[in-house]
Amino acid sequence: MPQTPAYGAAAPAMAHFTAGEAGQWRITRQSAPIGEGLAQAASIAINSPASDALWTLTGFTSNLRYTTFDERGPLDARSDPLGRPEARHAALIPIRKSSRWWALAQDERRAIYARSQHMPIGLDYLPQVARRRYHCRDLGQPFDFLTWFEFPESSGAAFDELVMRLRATEEWEYVEREIDIRLIRNI
Amino acid sequence: MPQTPAYGAAAPAMAHFTAGEAGQWRITRQSAPIGEGLAQAASIAINSPASDALWTLTGFTSNLRYTTFDERGPLDARSDPLGRPEARHAALIPIRKSSRWWALAQDERRAIYARSQHMPIGLDYLPQVARRRYHCRDLGQPFDFLTWFEFPESSGAAFDELVMRLRATEEWEYVEREIDIRLIRNI
Repeated sequence: MPQTPAYGAAAPAMAHFTAGEAGQWRITRQSAPIGEGLAQAASIAINSPASDALWTLTGFTSNLRYTTFDERGPLDARSDPLGRPEARHAALIPIRKSSRWWALAQDERRAIYARSQHMPIGLDYLPQVARRRYHCRDLGQPFDFLTWFEFPESSGAAFDELVMRLRATEEWEYVEREIDIRLIRNI
Repeated sequence: MPQTPAYGAAAPAMAHFTAGEAGQWRITRQSAPIGEGLAQAASIAINSPASDALWTLTGFTSNLRYTTFDERGPLDARSDPLGRPEARHAALIPIRKSSRWWALAQDERRAIYARSQHMPIGLDYLPQVARRRYHCRDLGQPFDFLTWFEFPESSGAAFDELVMRLRATEEWEYVEREIDIRLIRNI
């Protein structure tokens, strides 16, 4: 029996990312590559409420939305968990896609995702870059997804490359707001 | 320009179904075809909080999860909106699927959905039976979906047939809890 459920097979879980003065993760850089930015904060706390919160973003993990059975095998084989001691660098990337994207049928979205090589691009950076996807469009949040990445300092340049490759895809033509927050673990 | 967005293309919206003494819809029959039941109530109020609530179920509308572009055409052509004056009968069917279902990859779930003829079965009862799907698994609710149906009294037998046909499918082997609540509009 595997120790952890297969990719995308865990029960849904909510996560709250709260920006403020204090938090487990210190913000080193914050930008808005597409659309309106977010108030600049010093730190992000995950799942610990803060009285001085500048903003909080909430999302839930969910079942796989596009990944096929054949794609999940390599993902499971090469994915490392979050929380590795050496992975002291992180990124939080909130994204909102356009209403044009969401009006597409499932097979149309899947086709763009496949043509954009979203999955193979991500695989190129496993297991160094661990990540978890949170969904938030259905909660009426200002973003559709929050993706949290953790990686060792030595993978910083590789992570920059991953982000740039995704931004150059057809899928990203549907992104109308993207925030890029880089962090270092405080504790 | 169409007056209503294409099927599945509207912005997500939350809905609350509250069971209690009062509400726009009077419960005429309530059963639990699969698994544990829900407390028997007199009425259901939609999006109006009640102080005497026995239970409340919450879900959100969302983008299409399985429907393809080719399937959406006939759906759009044949779907009537909720709220038709003659559609005074309704059903609320909360469903929970097994963890085995949710651990499947997207293409595996889609294949079962297709083999089960979920979409063609539903099409057979359009436009008489109008419906809306709400998602709630990701909210940590006791069910995964709430489906709300509205139909004229003359379509009651057809609706029973629709439900029986779906329950006989391969997809329903993954349903581990199902409540069937029938209602008549009070107002």
